Amino acid sequence: MDVIILAAGQGSRMKSDKPKVLHPVGGKPMVQHVIDAAADLEGARLHVVIGHGADQVREALAGQELNFAVQAEQLGTGHAVAQAMDGVARDGISLVLYGDVPLTAAATLRHLVRIAGQGHLGLLTVELADPTGYGRIIRDDLGSVTAIVEHKDATDAQRAVREVNTGIMALPTRLLSEWLPLLSSNNAQGEYYLTDVIAMAAGEGVRVDAIQPEHEQEVQGVNNRQQQAELERWYQRREAERLMTEGVTLLDPARLDVRGSLDTGRDVVIDINCVFEGKVRLGDGVQIGPNCSIRNASIGNGTVIKANSVIEDAVVDAGCDIGPFARLRPGTELARGAKVGNFVETKKARIGEGSKVNHLSYIGDAEIGRDVNVGAGTITCNYDGVNKSVTRIGDGAFIGSNSALVAPVRIGAGGTVGAGSTITKDVDAQQLAVARGKQRNLDNWQRPVKRKD
Amino acid sequence: MDVIILAAGQGSRMKSDKPKVLHPVGGKPMVQHVIDAAADLEGARLHVVIGHGADQVREALAGQELNFAVQAEQLGTGHAVAQAMDGVARDGISLVLYGDVPLTAAATLRHLVRIAGQGHLGLLTVELADPTGYGRIIRDDLGSVTAIVEHKDATDAQRAVREVNTGIMALPTRLLSEWLPLLSSNNAQGEYYLTDVIAMAAGEGVRVDAIQPEHEQEVQGVNNRQQQAELERWYQRREAERLMTEGVTLLDPARLDVRGSLDTGRDVVIDINCVFEGKVRLGDGVQIGPNCSIRNASIGNGTVIKANSVIEDAVVDAGCDIGPFARLRPGTELARGAKVGNFVETKKARIGEGSKVNHLSYIGDAEIGRDVNVGAGTITCNYDGVNKSVTRIGDGAFIGSNSALVAPVRIGAGGTVGAGSTITKDVDAQQLAVARGKQRNLDNWQRPVKRKD
Amino acid sequence: MDVIILAAGQGSRMKSDKPKVLHPVGGKPMVQHVIDAAADLEGARLHVVIGHGADQVREALAGQELNFAVQAEQLGTGHAVAQAMDGVARDGISLVLYGDVPLTAAATLRHLVRIAGQGHLGLLTVELADPTGYGRIIRDDLGSVTAIVEHKDATDAQRAVREVNTGIMALPTRLLSEWLPLLSSNNAQGEYYLTDVIAMAAGEGVRVDAIQPEHEQEVQGVNNRQQQAELERWYQRREAERLMTEGVTLLDPARLDVRGSLDTGRDVVIDINCVFEGKVRLGDGVQIGPNCSIRNASIGNGTVIKANSVIEDAVVDAGCDIGPFARLRPGTELARGAKVGNFVETKKARIGEGSKVNHLSYIGDAEIGRDVNVGAGTITCNYDGVNKSVTRIGDGAFIGSNSALVAPVRIGAGGTVGAGSTITKDVDAQQLAVARGKQRNLDNWQRPVKRKD
Repeated sequence: MDVIILAAGQGSRMKSDKPKVLHPVGGKPMVQHVIDAAADLEGARLHVVIGHGADQVREALAGQELNFAVQAEQLGTGHAVAQAMDGVARDGISLVLYGDVPLTAAATLRHLVRIAGQGHLGLLTVELADPTGYGRIIRDDLGSVTAIVEHKDATDAQRAVREVNTGIMALPTRLLSEWLPLLSSNNAQGEYYLTDVIAMAAGEGVRVDAIQPEHEQEVQGVNNRQQQAELERWYQRREAERLMTEGVTLLDPARLDVRGSLDTGRDVVIDINCVFEGKVRLGDGVQIGPNCSIRNASIGNGTVIKANSVIEDAVVDAGCDIGPFARLRPGTELARGAKVGNFVETKKARIGEGSKVNHLSYIGDAEIGRDVNVGAGTITCNYDGVNKSVTRIGDGAFIGSNSALVAPVRIGAGGTVGAGSTITKDVDAQQLAVARGKQRNLDNWQRPVKRKD
Repeated sequence: MDVIILAAGQGSRMKSDKPKVLHPVGGKPMVQHVIDAAADLEGARLHVVIGHGADQVREALAGQELNFAVQAEQLGTGHAVAQAMDGVARDGISLVLYGDVPLTAAATLRHLVRIAGQGHLGLLTVELADPTGYGRIIRDDLGSVTAIVEHKDATDAQRAVREVNTGIMALPTRLLSEWLPLLSSNNAQGEYYLTDVIAMAAGEGVRVDAIQPEHEQEVQGVNNRQQQAELERWYQRREAERLMTEGVTLLDPARLDVRGSLDTGRDVVIDINCVFEGKVRLGDGVQIGPNCSIRNASIGNGTVIKANSVIEDAVVDAGCDIGPFARLRPGTELARGAKVGNFVETKKARIGEGSKVNHLSYIGDAEIGRDVNVGAGTITCNYDGVNKSVTRIGDGAFIGSNSALVAPVRIGAGGTVGAGSTITKDVDAQQLAVARGKQRNLDNWQRPVKRKD
Repeated sequence: MDVIILAAGQGSRMKSDKPKVLHPVGGKPMVQHVIDAAADLEGARLHVVIGHGADQVREALAGQELNFAVQAEQLGTGHAVAQAMDGVARDGISLVLYGDVPLTAAATLRHLVRIAGQGHLGLLTVELADPTGYGRIIRDDLGSVTAIVEHKDATDAQRAVREVNTGIMALPTRLLSEWLPLLSSNNAQGEYYLTDVIAMAAGEGVRVDAIQPEHEQEVQGVNNRQQQAELERWYQRREAERLMTEGVTLLDPARLDVRGSLDTGRDVVIDINCVFEGKVRLGDGVQIGPNCSIRNASIGNGTVIKANSVIEDAVVDAGCDIGPFARLRPGTELARGAKVGNFVETKKARIGEGSKVNHLSYIGDAEIGRDVNVGAGTITCNYDGVNKSVTRIGDGAFIGSNSALVAPVRIGAGGTVGAGSTITKDVDAQQLAVARGKQRNLDNWQRPVKRKD
């Protein structure tokens, strides 16, 4: 089976420098949605017809098993399909999809393919409340499609038909390759329309079976940012629905964004306005507070993430307590029961079991043992302007507040750093290190006076 | 009067380890909503029938005047009510409610009770757009209910009835206790259905008066997370409506969450996406910026809370200026005109009139007088690893930036701490304390060079 | 042409100390919307009739070319218009608008004025789904309005009319000034109703042409906070629609707030829940993360602003990287490619090309050159309690982490500040400055023991 995905259009109403099919829905380029649904079909070879922004599309889709065909001029859908035919096996089935119609369900595609497998032409249609402007589906008494009549050519009776063509179809490739050369550009736009094969099928007695998708949005194309936003919101409502069905409490299903895959354990609670990107796993009993953004992260059972936290490329074990206002950057690993509090940034940091970094700290390029207390305002000085170096803190160490740890540096197990110290040399186990000026108190200090400006 | 609340069900479609009736709506367990509405009825004795997760439910409802009855096996609503009858007075009225139908208005319940008080059976019904699957209400010419016909047993004419049974009813206890033993489990599910008492009433000539709630949601039960979310959003829309009626400006009524009680003064403005939990009071003219979370707090007149602030268990006086990105933790008390700025955390901190903690500070276990200026990056070192100690700062003191105050420590009135100091000893009134290293400038410093990796 | 804007009403249902017409929609007082639409009409002289809270309204509208007329007693719309007539030219056209009907389109107003220019009375009406309570528009066979019948006086046939009066009208001033003295207060409310001029027009054979606005919301008045919120959301939906049409990707059009003017380049992406206030310009390819608040700012091409950032009165050049959790305060200027990271506050700060302030810093009253690295936890100590002073940092300087720079102070080009230093004296170019205590390590340190409480 061959799947031909038309992705050559410009999408000028998007008013974008990016090819339309690369605009995302649910965090993934629209054409990638189509590719993923097609790749889900057994034995499918995928052909992508590119044109406008061909290089950008090719690059965005690199590394996948795809045949690219270039449509240099945009001469209609029939012409676009023709460009891909060189790579298409003549004895199989062809399924034609569109890179700007991103959310067709794989089940719908399978249904079309089954029809084509019986030698028929499977056509995807949809009933619209207002079909004005669309090609109407004309059926015979047996329900087989006999024609598609364009709106402007339709009689009043035909215009009353609310079933319209979506352009998505599957058919024996033998028929497609016979018919494509017969398409004519003798029309107002001067384009070759794939749709015209329906009339050819009817003319040759090939049955045209039209089926409908479960949801209208499956066949909704995107021509402007409004349509993109509509599909985005529908996609997100479905994600919310899926998560609730799986037992997730969503405080507001309309204020959830999943742009990737969100996998959840039992009794997860997600508060309002959270955004999940990439691949995120939330374990049993995880609670996510309002306004959190989480990207590519695994969060262990029972961990609580409080309001306004931002997490990216992090692995968090069970029973951790994070935020509010925590920022876990890539390479953060929190062991069981660790705490990262407000206004704390971590990066390439392993924080051991039960350790706490509760306030206003920067922990970068650090390995912190278990049961460590990192005081408020602690900074790991991991960068000397050219090199990054590592700070190592042993189990049970206590880092006094407002300390600077100048890496590379090591604090031994059970070591203590006095508040306000700048530590440049290693501290051995059980040692106390202090590095600060002696306090002097001066009596009757005269405060500065207001300068005249 | 006795209120029997059925709260024994498992709620398997919630896919939760928590008993269904403990899942919250508006921040409060569903069964607690039912209890609160019932407790609002004069002279009501409350009985809660528990079963699945009985211990959890009992514990969650501890400390209230409730009789618990245990339904060990789930043999239907009639069986459940029967478990509670030992504690029910025979000469009163019984009202049967459901722990997973949380939002029935007290006025609706009172209406039912009035009907029962007249010796009738008061039944709560609802008209549904799509009644498929529900038991239809069959009335005689006088409007009295004569039967409830299950969907599967209904004639076409009966199926056309859109009024359905909710199961909520009030009736003389004498009748209930007569009828309960007569219920039969001779049905498909093998359960004892409370609903069957309607037929008994009709058979014995007891009038059944069916009334409808003002809002359909009053009788909506929760069987899955979707229904929980729907009720949550309805509850929140009502809260928004209530606040606007009281004169609050809500920038977006659809983006407000009140999970507890929110009490507001005159001319309060609440920006988008705020969450209020527990008991919150906002005084006249209070302005809350976007994305704030506030829990158990009192905010004085004219105080402004800027974007992305998180406040919990705090008392804020009039004219304060908080945030953005402020985090007031439990035990924070701000006097009139105090300022707490961005990236500042306070905890068990009293901050005096007109004092300012504007930037990047941690103020914990602190008592700060009036007109104090706490510089950026100030840390109160309140924890030595085992003990918490207090920092006291007198009126008019000036704490230089990036200082660490190692508690227990006292800065006298009018005292000054030089920037970058770590203060370990008390500073007397009007003293300047400095504790920092002497600055050395080295010429022609050779910067580190890039290491080879 | 004269525009008479009625803005004297109390708006008691707003329950506010602020005059109703000063309550905002889209961040602008309602009456200012009306003024702006009217000022858009060629040759319009604007008259504002004030009464309740007259001083507040006058002050809020100060500095504009407006004639104020005071209506001391609230005796009806006709009486209100009469107060303004002293300043109105007798030979022109009068347009009557309402300060609490904020969103009438200028095109609608122009249409009314054109009608009046032909000697007719132009009346704005609207079709309502439920016209109960409103004055119905009665037309003759030619479509001219012959009367407005109040709901309580209407026949059943008249009540079936869904077209109702909005009170907005334009007419030759000559007619208006003839008719105003003829208005009677002989009605239930004892008020002079401007509406009564319609009957006078019909009586005198002056044609009354009723036109409808494009959107019902154009004539929606605001009498309570619910109506204010409804108009606010409609206003915001229109803003979202406008932005999408211009090619902006909005991740959720329902979660966008524009309270002022938002001007966007090509391929701008705005994530959920952002708030724009005042005058904001976003260049080509700008990306705004979730939950950002931006006020009066210009953001250069390709700049990325990450989640939960707050920006006010700032100018940001191209290619900058901001946030998450950044707070740019007034007077911030970022040159090309500058970075301001998490938990960083800037104020009156110029940050040069390619310079970085990535973590937990306060940069106030500062001039920072290009390619400067400001380490985590750096504080510019710009305030001595009475004076603000400036910190200057030369090109290529490196400021070690957890440093305090006590202004006024200068770090020369290529200068280095050692981590944890408090810098009080200037550092020359290429110098290294260090100011910190010597580190001492003490063996076998005995940790504090838990106090008995």
